[in-house]
Amino acid sequence: MTGRELRYVEPAATLVPAAELAARLAGLQGVLAARGLDAAVIMQNADLYYYAGTIQQGHLYVPAVGESTLFVRKVVERARLESALGSIVELASPKALPDALRERYGTLPARVGLELDVLPVARFRAIERLLPEAAFEDVGRDIVRRRAVKSEWEVARIRVAAAVADDVCALIPGILREGLTEVEFAGRVEAEARRLGHEGYIRMRGFNQEMFYGQLLTGVSACVPSYLDTPLAGTGLSASVAQGASFRRIGRGEPIVFDFVPVRDGYMADFTRTFSIGPLPAPLRRAHDAALAVQAAAVAAARPGAVCRAVWEAAVAAAAEAGLAERFMGSGAGQVPYVGHGLGIELDELPVLTGSALELEEGMVFALEPKFVLPGLGAVGIENTWVVTGSGPERLTMAPEIIHEVG
Amino acid sequence: MTGRELRYVEPAATLVPAAELAARLAGLQGVLAARGLDAAVIMQNADLYYYAGTIQQGHLYVPAVGESTLFVRKVVERARLESALGSIVELASPKALPDALRERYGTLPARVGLELDVLPVARFRAIERLLPEAAFEDVGRDIVRRRAVKSEWEVARIRVAAAVADDVCALIPGILREGLTEVEFAGRVEAEARRLGHEGYIRMRGFNQEMFYGQLLTGVSACVPSYLDTPLAGTGLSASVAQGASFRRIGRGEPIVFDFVPVRDGYMADFTRTFSIGPLPAPLRRAHDAALAVQAAAVAAARPGAVCRAVWEAAVAAAAEAGLAERFMGSGAGQVPYVGHGLGIELDELPVLTGSALELEEGMVFALEPKFVLPGLGAVGIENTWVVTGSGPERLTMAPEIIHEVG
Repeated sequence: MTGRELRYVEPAATLVPAAELAARLAGLQGVLAARGLDAAVIMQNADLYYYAGTIQQGHLYVPAVGESTLFVRKVVERARLESALGSIVELASPKALPDALRERYGTLPARVGLELDVLPVARFRAIERLLPEAAFEDVGRDIVRRRAVKSEWEVARIRVAAAVADDVCALIPGILREGLTEVEFAGRVEAEARRLGHEGYIRMRGFNQEMFYGQLLTGVSACVPSYLDTPLAGTGLSASVAQGASFRRIGRGEPIVFDFVPVRDGYMADFTRTFSIGPLPAPLRRAHDAALAVQAAAVAAARPGAVCRAVWEAAVAAAAEAGLAERFMGSGAGQVPYVGHGLGIELDELPVLTGSALELEEGMVFALEPKFVLPGLGAVGIENTWVVTGSGPERLTMAPEIIHEVG
Repeated sequence: MTGRELRYVEPAATLVPAAELAARLAGLQGVLAARGLDAAVIMQNADLYYYAGTIQQGHLYVPAVGESTLFVRKVVERARLESALGSIVELASPKALPDALRERYGTLPARVGLELDVLPVARFRAIERLLPEAAFEDVGRDIVRRRAVKSEWEVARIRVAAAVADDVCALIPGILREGLTEVEFAGRVEAEARRLGHEGYIRMRGFNQEMFYGQLLTGVSACVPSYLDTPLAGTGLSASVAQGASFRRIGRGEPIVFDFVPVRDGYMADFTRTFSIGPLPAPLRRAHDAALAVQAAAVAAARPGAVCRAVWEAAVAAAAEAGLAERFMGSGAGQVPYVGHGLGIELDELPVLTGSALELEEGMVFALEPKFVLPGLGAVGIENTWVVTGSGPERLTMAPEIIHEVG
């Protein structure tokens, strides 16, 4: 089989440009130098995509100084087409890594950064055996911190994903109807997202975190908390999945919360709108107004230089002013202590809009998701994806911020 | 919010019965005793579901002798409804685990088994800090080995998942048509799967392994290898996902490979059928015949007591007899050295039908997936899910084993 017969790259895909990779790697090299590390070895898919533009199986070796090399076990021809890196080398087995490093860099690194926040112990020990003289430190947290600030190119990618959410949202009135099960409705909406190019798999960094498109919840389903650290979780189809849509049938006059994560070219947005068939009871309409008020307060607080805690406290104060503190971001055991989270290549990135001292910076992208859970009635809320600019957050998800009443 | 107002469990879901959990835990306790370990602490979702029947966030403590306890951080009320375990205790923070263990078991374990094959290093070190006197060993591989042999109850669950694959397969002629993009077609098929109760998320144990429903590939898309250790991978929508459906439009007279993983109640099957719009060229039809011949040879070899290597060698011999050894299980860089894999709660379970010495046992469930990649033409193949019985493998996916020609 020749390369010509193959189509390794979808023509409509946008590859990560060389200048992006160079800037990102320079940033990581700054971390390595500051921490006195000789090199980092990157192995996890999200980080490989970020630093190499490909997830072809292998190791990305980033020296503190000099050119990085992507060692690929499978498939090197594909990696060469997907990645704009200049140095891509085939390596039949990880066992050949030490010799390949000696050949290319003249020596083996003594102090090595690894993604210890995600790397399984067994994998880590295999690396220890390969480089028995080396000392290892975690650079996963540094990478997460670096990745929190997006380039203009990345923000453009997230805009593309956000547009998928807006487009799908506009199609929902044509799909939603009484008597559909939650999961049937979800499937039809998901099919539209796929047609528009949703990649499917949603990456999360946290151990045991699983996500499938988001959560489409109706009525009291949205009041059901679960293991996930999210304000809404839902019943789900079984105790195995324990979140998301169930076989519950959609009724009139109940809130339908459409929390949706679109993904294009590896970048995602996060988005929630509230729908209903017929009008909602007044307490839910008031709670939706309160969600918009919380959003406004949080956005006003989210200036560059502000700490996340200030945004969180502004949100909590606005929820309390609406008399809904007890219902904010979940209810009872389901209440979570944050109102937003960073996202980009993974859904659980920095900044987390919680009581933290992390300062917001221009280029940070976050989802702000004020939601209220009213026991016995359901949940309402709004979620948009925002990028921090010099003059404050700019909204990237543009669908109307109303209760979308259908039928 | 009271429990009464909530619906923690989908009424159509099947919970893991107490007797199942008891038998599984007894098996793990046998491993602990044999290895001289005092206890295991289980944390990963798939293993939690297997041993506790719930994935509510926490730690399952399994002593070598005596009753296991599920310590739940979030949400304990839900865990009590989902899990048939007798001992479920709320624990506000993992930091309280040592005191809770002392209170419940009188002492702390000295030798502890952990899932070191999946546990990230940072999580492992947090456990080390909680139990500073303890020595830790990997029990992940033992758990995987135990889980390879399914109970009758588990096989019944896999039959339910398999029926979803068969039902979706029967609907495809009504969906498939020329000019649809692969991903549009995939979305419509996935919507039917959702309506039938597909849970969505597909668990895989391997680091960096990602899967979204399977792969729906058409024509030469199916010839494109990728990082995944699968015979077919596909272009995908971007370098970020690097597998599965793309925006390629489906044409006449080309093979359409529908590789699909249905999931119900946490259990999955794996399934492939080949479709076409109009007849396929003769080389592809012959390769499909060869896939059926390989399947027959492998099934004949897959008796209880046979080693996996014998099944793999029977498959390779049948492929060679058809003159297609070079095209078997991928082509060129995409060729993989196995013809099947175990599955159940995760897609990458034991047994792997490769050159291994693992002996097949009654109750093992595997997907057998002979596939051929013909450069320039596309791929064909068949995949069924089988359970090993005393008299040989029994097929669980029942759709006709033909090239499904449409239009």
